[in-house]
Amino acid sequence: MSKVVLSILVNNTSGVLMRVVGLFARRGYNIDSVSSGVTEDSRYSRITVAVTGDDIILDQIKKQVSKLEDVKKVKELADDHSVYRELCLVKVRADRDDLQTINAIADIFRGKIDDISDDSMIIEMTGNQAKVDVLLERLKGYNIEVLELVRTGITGLARGSV
Amino acid sequence: MSKVVLSILVNNTSGVLMRVVGLFARRGYNIDSVSSGVTEDSRYSRITVAVTGDDIILDQIKKQVSKLEDVKKVKELADDHSVYRELCLVKVRADRDDLQTINAIADIFRGKIDDISDDSMIIEMTGNQAKVDVLLERLKGYNIEVLELVRTGITGLARGSV
Repeated sequence: MSKVVLSILVNNTSGVLMRVVGLFARRGYNIDSVSSGVTEDSRYSRITVAVTGDDIILDQIKKQVSKLEDVKKVKELADDHSVYRELCLVKVRADRDDLQTINAIADIFRGKIDDISDDSMIIEMTGNQAKVDVLLERLKGYNIEVLELVRTGITGLARGSV
Repeated sequence: MSKVVLSILVNNTSGVLMRVVGLFARRGYNIDSVSSGVTEDSRYSRITVAVTGDDIILDQIKKQVSKLEDVKKVKELADDHSVYRELCLVKVRADRDDLQTINAIADIFRGKIDDISDDSMIIEMTGNQAKVDVLLERLKGYNIEVLELVRTGITGLARGSV
């Protein structure tokens, strides 16, 4: 079993995301995360899929994805040659007495407070699952209740100009 | 025509993303962006879909999504009561002479340089399409070539504790 991140360049059409996601679903693979948005050229989108599975079958899927209609290019973003990023928003229950604590915790994780209301705050942070897990643990340690958490899923680019 | 952002809480299963995306595709709607990842509880994922369309049909789709298998809850993230965020990575052709210029530009957009090689750099930035567009324009103004751009798609949370 290994975890791979695939960067899939596609025509910006309504059906292609479904075809890509469908291919994984038919194989019974649970996608760890997916993110998709237009590229520098609005005719194309880039879908980034993180998936865990058996090497041989992942290899087959990669080949099959590249044959799908509207798929232009499939690239595996290898761990050691890529930059991965994920954005995470965490809403916590907090009042004015918690502001300094939460601000300090956000700072440690190079995050920031995005929003503040009478009884809640939203922390924004960039990082992987492991980093998010540590943040959640630390919040718990300060008895700060997590109300909601949402993440974008991994996106990434290969290092260097190739 | 309006643009809506839907936050969809689902069971973390292999088929549900396909069912959600498929519903939009069958209607011929092109999803502007989609992002998905597990929540604070690993049994659930949150799918965030940004889509532009006719009000009446979007309303129908919202109802249909909420009836899909493994969908727990559908929430529209209204513009004025939500925090939206999107992460963007931009790879540019650049050598050591460009470092200070690119670093200064990244600073202006509250971004940062994530990676540097002999002939390229990767800028990380959080922001919406409009902000990214301005960044691309500014890079162009300094004759800096964009090699690749990838974005996570919008994610968001409603403000306040409700």
